[in-house]
Amino acid sequence: MPTVAAATEPHPDPRVQAVFDDIRAVRGTANINNFWRYLATDAQLLQDTWNEVKQVMRADSALDGLTKEMIYVAVSVANACGYCVHSHTAAARARGMTDAQYAELLAVVGLAAKTNHLALALQVPTDTAYDGDAHTDLKT
Amino acid sequence: MPTVAAATEPHPDPRVQAVFDDIRAVRGTANINNFWRYLATDAQLLQDTWNEVKQVMRADSALDGLTKEMIYVAVSVANACGYCVHSHTAAARARGMTDAQYAELLAVVGLAAKTNHLALALQVPTDTAYDGDAHTDLKT
Amino acid sequence: MPTVAAATEPHPDPRVQAVFDDIRAVRGTANINNFWRYLATDAQLLQDTWNEVKQVMRADSALDGLTKEMIYVAVSVANACGYCVHSHTAAARARGMTDAQYAELLAVVGLAAKTNHLALALQVPTDTAYDGDAHTDLKT
Amino acid sequence: MPTVAAATEPHPDPRVQAVFDDIRAVRGTANINNFWRYLATDAQLLQDTWNEVKQVMRADSALDGLTKEMIYVAVSVANACGYCVHSHTAAARARGMTDAQYAELLAVVGLAAKTNHLALALQVPTDTAYDGDAHTDLKT
Amino acid sequence: MPTVAAATEPHPDPRVQAVFDDIRAVRGTANINNFWRYLATDAQLLQDTWNEVKQVMRADSALDGLTKEMIYVAVSVANACGYCVHSHTAAARARGMTDAQYAELLAVVGLAAKTNHLALALQVPTDTAYDGDAHTDLKT
Amino acid sequence: MPTVAAATEPHPDPRVQAVFDDIRAVRGTANINNFWRYLATDAQLLQDTWNEVKQVMRADSALDGLTKEMIYVAVSVANACGYCVHSHTAAARARGMTDAQYAELLAVVGLAAKTNHLALALQVPTDTAYDGDAHTDLKT
Repeated sequence: MPTVAAATEPHPDPRVQAVFDDIRAVRGTANINNFWRYLATDAQLLQDTWNEVKQVMRADSALDGLTKEMIYVAVSVANACGYCVHSHTAAARARGMTDAQYAELLAVVGLAAKTNHLALALQVPTDTAYDGDAHTDLKT
Repeated sequence: MPTVAAATEPHPDPRVQAVFDDIRAVRGTANINNFWRYLATDAQLLQDTWNEVKQVMRADSALDGLTKEMIYVAVSVANACGYCVHSHTAAARARGMTDAQYAELLAVVGLAAKTNHLALALQVPTDTAYDGDAHTDLKT
Repeated sequence: MPTVAAATEPHPDPRVQAVFDDIRAVRGTANINNFWRYLATDAQLLQDTWNEVKQVMRADSALDGLTKEMIYVAVSVANACGYCVHSHTAAARARGMTDAQYAELLAVVGLAAKTNHLALALQVPTDTAYDGDAHTDLKT
Repeated sequence: MPTVAAATEPHPDPRVQAVFDDIRAVRGTANINNFWRYLATDAQLLQDTWNEVKQVMRADSALDGLTKEMIYVAVSVANACGYCVHSHTAAARARGMTDAQYAELLAVVGLAAKTNHLALALQVPTDTAYDGDAHTDLKT
Repeated sequence: MPTVAAATEPHPDPRVQAVFDDIRAVRGTANINNFWRYLATDAQLLQDTWNEVKQVMRADSALDGLTKEMIYVAVSVANACGYCVHSHTAAARARGMTDAQYAELLAVVGLAAKTNHLALALQVPTDTAYDGDAHTDLKT
Repeated sequence: MPTVAAATEPHPDPRVQAVFDDIRAVRGTANINNFWRYLATDAQLLQDTWNEVKQVMRADSALDGLTKEMIYVAVSVANACGYCVHSHTAAARARGMTDAQYAELLAVVGLAAKTNHLALALQVPTDTAYDGDAHTDLKT
């Protein structure tokens, strides 16, 4: 149950309609998933967010698309965003994630959560070897 | 500042010493990082956790080691575990993460957090297309 | 789907009924929203929580009511409490939040989440200028 | 590094001094731990919070003091509050928590975090058997 | 709505069927709750997780079963895992949790969340008295 | 302790230096706080984030600057980002936040966290009155 009403089409605000058209063109699908339909409650926020998603999740980059979608799923799980878990799990599958890869993603996320909580419970002090400022060669 | 004292060596409990020896053997380093030194407050928990880390983060699997470490960092950031962020960022670098890949990891984590919060704020309803039970072919 | 049954009226425990009556009187509405109906599973917890809400969210205070409701929404989003996001977004609207203000609330929450995750990922050290103990004039 | 200055004694605000005196009386110690010294930045908030802690964490109740402190630690770990992890781990020890009990607390917290993330990742639907409204006998 | 399809029985993978049979034997019930039915999407993950749950949540240990289930609920609430809140609240009830104990669990979890956020907002520095490394007698 | 080295000046990458110069110009201060110095590990991420901060946190908007900074603090507390809590508490003070307003911000954040956890623990069902799709007049 959302806090706002979903945008319908054709949309009276040309900026909203333009983003919807661009989503369809970039993804090669007629479907506009709910995140964009509800974010359209504010045209500026919709436009800025879609542009950022396009830029960060683009194909020609240092990390491949599947890796980026799996990282997205991992953050979404930890932030308990059910919608985001769904949409980015679907996006990862669309980019070729196999059942075996999905099982490993689940295992890593579960293990990370466990050791995160153990380290927080013990308040483990950070090893000095991890200090980025002490190792300026990290950047070279 | 930790809640327990760090384990010292040689350790009186042979299970603790055996895990420390195995960490050194598997990683090819003399260093035992703090997480294991403090988790050693309980030998059983140390042993079980190390075995799980070895099994889940092993090299011969469906996801490569660097991808798994980056997913680990992503979860650790979202769970606000500073220690874990450090140790797994270092592990990702040790497995070859470049500065460009790290920058993209940061960008994806930041964007995911942003859209997680937007979807949670709007309480966006999940698209029926994402229903795993409706698409039993997902498993075939 | 709740973990307990909703309280019905008239309620056998006079403390529960008294809180329900006070909610109606303070808010000028016949409706008791679900949070209070389920929290009524324990009369003491219901009573204490309602009294705290009345005291903290009162009108005659240093922050106006709308600002307090928007801060409430922000925390609820970050804690992934869907119910709370809904009830306090509705309360903010009831206190006059416009669509433009809601859009900015969303934008600030999204941006904060993003930079929170970036600062946690980089483990940025706190600037000494922020030390409350070093600047005792903060209190004067 | 705090956002405000610590309260010093004797404190000019009698409400702050009264809370400090009461903490000493209730706990039988001269020490005032930092949480209260910094929360004293606002006398009302200090007073209300101390009264709530006294009431909820009191000895004569349905749950024993050690159990309540361990639950407090568990929440504090999941919320990544390092200070709270420390103060309530110390409180649990002061109430008799053994090393074996602490090790089990760690194991349960770690396992819960892992299965929390797995259930969130899979978006497991809630079993109808858990519906509190369907089982009104839960309250009798 | 889940991301995968639920496992049906008889299950083609003998490891999945063996875990389901063991759950029924250990719990003395014909019911397999949804967490296990969906986690069965990967037989290895199902098997490892069930074995860990059996080991950590076993009856003959330093903490009694009810205490462990209440700690589990506390972590699940803080991690916003609705499914886990439900399944472990039910498990706590099955192990004898009374309405009065449940009310106190709620009160402690609520108070912990409140003081967690206050300590994080004030960035209260950890008292040196809590340093586990300074008190090596903690382990003796 | 950070994961990367802080940027020094003059910076070899003109995009980094341009952002630093713009921060100084916009804020009317010589100081560049640590967030920007470490985010400079990637010039593109630095530039995009600074532009977004400038746009979202600008003065001429539907919410005043102080309200936006307090919302930012609230999210940062809930996400346990110590650095962000500090920098945005300082920013709120710079925009005129009084001690009384800060005390109320703390009280609202603490209360919200408490009721968030109570609603999550009880899994309170959302009132149908909150459905944004059912009330299309919300947008008019």
